[in-house]
Amino acid sequence: MSTDEQGPGPSRRRVLLGGAAAAGAGAVALTGTDALVRSLRSASGEAAEADPVHGGRTHPFHGAHQAGIATPPQANARFIGVDLREEVDADGVRRLLSLLSDDAARLTQGRAALADTEPELALAPAGLTVTLGFGPGLVERVDPDAVPAWLGPLPAFDTDRLEDRWSHGDLLLQVCCDDTLTLSHAARMLLKDVRAFGSVRWSQEGFRRSHGTEPAGTTMRNLMGQVDGTVNPEANDPDFDPLVWCGAEGPGWLRGGTAVVLRRISMDLDGWDRLDRPGREDSVGRRLDNGAPLTGAEEHDEPDLDAVTPLGFPVIAEYAHIRRARSEDPDERIFRRAYNYESVGGGAHGDDAGLLFVCYQRDPDRQFVPIQRRLDQLDLLNEWITHIGSAVFAVPPGCAEGGFVGETLFDR
Amino acid sequence: MSTDEQGPGPSRRRVLLGGAAAAGAGAVALTGTDALVRSLRSASGEAAEADPVHGGRTHPFHGAHQAGIATPPQANARFIGVDLREEVDADGVRRLLSLLSDDAARLTQGRAALADTEPELALAPAGLTVTLGFGPGLVERVDPDAVPAWLGPLPAFDTDRLEDRWSHGDLLLQVCCDDTLTLSHAARMLLKDVRAFGSVRWSQEGFRRSHGTEPAGTTMRNLMGQVDGTVNPEANDPDFDPLVWCGAEGPGWLRGGTAVVLRRISMDLDGWDRLDRPGREDSVGRRLDNGAPLTGAEEHDEPDLDAVTPLGFPVIAEYAHIRRARSEDPDERIFRRAYNYESVGGGAHGDDAGLLFVCYQRDPDRQFVPIQRRLDQLDLLNEWITHIGSAVFAVPPGCAEGGFVGETLFDR
Repeated sequence: MSTDEQGPGPSRRRVLLGGAAAAGAGAVALTGTDALVRSLRSASGEAAEADPVHGGRTHPFHGAHQAGIATPPQANARFIGVDLREEVDADGVRRLLSLLSDDAARLTQGRAALADTEPELALAPAGLTVTLGFGPGLVERVDPDAVPAWLGPLPAFDTDRLEDRWSHGDLLLQVCCDDTLTLSHAARMLLKDVRAFGSVRWSQEGFRRSHGTEPAGTTMRNLMGQVDGTVNPEANDPDFDPLVWCGAEGPGWLRGGTAVVLRRISMDLDGWDRLDRPGREDSVGRRLDNGAPLTGAEEHDEPDLDAVTPLGFPVIAEYAHIRRARSEDPDERIFRRAYNYESVGGGAHGDDAGLLFVCYQRDPDRQFVPIQRRLDQLDLLNEWITHIGSAVFAVPPGCAEGGFVGETLFDR
Repeated sequence: MSTDEQGPGPSRRRVLLGGAAAAGAGAVALTGTDALVRSLRSASGEAAEADPVHGGRTHPFHGAHQAGIATPPQANARFIGVDLREEVDADGVRRLLSLLSDDAARLTQGRAALADTEPELALAPAGLTVTLGFGPGLVERVDPDAVPAWLGPLPAFDTDRLEDRWSHGDLLLQVCCDDTLTLSHAARMLLKDVRAFGSVRWSQEGFRRSHGTEPAGTTMRNLMGQVDGTVNPEANDPDFDPLVWCGAEGPGWLRGGTAVVLRRISMDLDGWDRLDRPGREDSVGRRLDNGAPLTGAEEHDEPDLDAVTPLGFPVIAEYAHIRRARSEDPDERIFRRAYNYESVGGGAHGDDAGLLFVCYQRDPDRQFVPIQRRLDQLDLLNEWITHIGSAVFAVPPGCAEGGFVGETLFDR
């Protein structure tokens, strides 16, 4: 059966998105460069402008690793925690994962989901990725012996104020996209697959700069205004693979997979605003204007933790966030891919805002926990941030065409 | 005082946003065409691509009309309804409007707000507009005789299920932007101005396709998958001005202003999904794939309301949305600028989703009400949509540099 039977085919997509949107699975379609260039005529008399269309851009769904991890962060993300129904057994899990993988494979390539009721909303993938993560409750149903030691609630931290409604879950759907309408539609189609098997435990929406607002590769800013994420292994660093992708040390089914930690960090923005600018820079150890360490001039300058002021005090304070986050142990590193969040609507008016801290590592207990332990013990930023949600998921490797994400859990 | 004293100046913005971001008020800066072109290197081995940066684009704040109405719709919008405190009198209103106008003038041009605590978040205006609307409660405090006859709750419609938490208010802040972070920051800065004078009554966030996902000028789709907004006067149509901008017929302070109607329309998407495709097209009177009327081939073809099937039934049914929305009276037209909404986060999981129907007209009683009356009486779409919020605001004309939005209310 043609994968395009469910909706308008490639030719229509090509018309809509002006380019090479019809690439098959596994290929990378770029419509950014050869895109249809249209003039934007505005009511206020703006001149014509050339705007390339990025809606046709795709990331491969199939491969050694799941997409959405090493993928350059898209502008928008939704993290959905699912609780499985009690009666769902290993076979049920297999059916659910097959359904989800199949629809994710379609949607990420700009094709309608199998039972898509609004197929036109699937035509602009805009860099969509769907990443699945498993909580202990899911893995146990398939094979209780397959649960990695680190998969479960993190150890308690003193400054945690965790709320159950933002924590834990059996299954994670991570949906990232450069278009909000495509993201909304994809999330809805995936949740339809889930319906017979479980219910939504929490749903968290995140944002960075929208696509094209800033040059690609600009480090994000969080809602406190800080440049956030400067020190982060890049996907092509030699360090990236051993830090992120699980190897021979853990359960075999996770080889090529990873672990994701999602922490909902609420910010007291009003309190932060009462602090003066030098105080803010001091608490982080970086300049606010360009994110440079207080001992440097540019964002990516290496902080000099030994530098002292004329009076003999450290330039980067003992309590500064970047000093506390740093480890002497090169294995105590993580790969971050965070998003801002702000609750608006449904009665909320932006009063809960902060950061969806998201990081990937092969072993959270050995990589994330020591970092967070140091931050928990002493980090001036703790005055204005509170961890209110926490979840850990095992992220299986990718699958080949015809397979499904998580199949390695069944093949043991 | 230089408008750039509050934050990094134009030269810094130029560096960040790669172009002509430093245009003065009244000018239109386009960085889309001459933007810094950077290669995007991706973990999945994508080729380099050219992506222009649109974050520096601005719309003038000052002018005969407020921006955000005839402005081509930005990707994201936030509508905030404010209740004024009881003790705020005419002088208080004047101070509030001066503060808001001053900060809106800055923020829309990519400059930090007057008391901006995160000035770096203001540097990428990304087409930001701020539009102010007044409810009767605000106008009365300045001049009870200045309230236009149409300013107040709309007449009740049979199918309405209005909730107070999405309805009414003394002041509307409409913030539209192509970047979500800039929008979040601008909304927060404006709400800081409001704090001493009132409180947030409701906050509604909307989205269309993200900037650049589709060619500019593509008609939006709503969450039901329909092409939504085909029949709409364009800002350069000769009809636009007399339909939208208030003239000599109403209060003098509103000349050059307009009226906005905001309806929160909840969609029963699961119910809609149970309807087959012909049934959906029949209920609207348009094709789902390209939005063409059932009697035509292309989106903008004129519907033939007299066409009948071989059996003698109308091709576009009596109950079809587009037939019911249409009027014989050319004055019964409105200018639409709607956004999709979906409540996610804060305990909501997308179960409340729909359309923020937003329209502008010089007189809602004569333009919007007759249309909605016909839809209320008979429109098959009512099976799947419910109006749950309603608000009307008087939108004053624009102001010149040094003035403030709403000043005409005080100059009578």
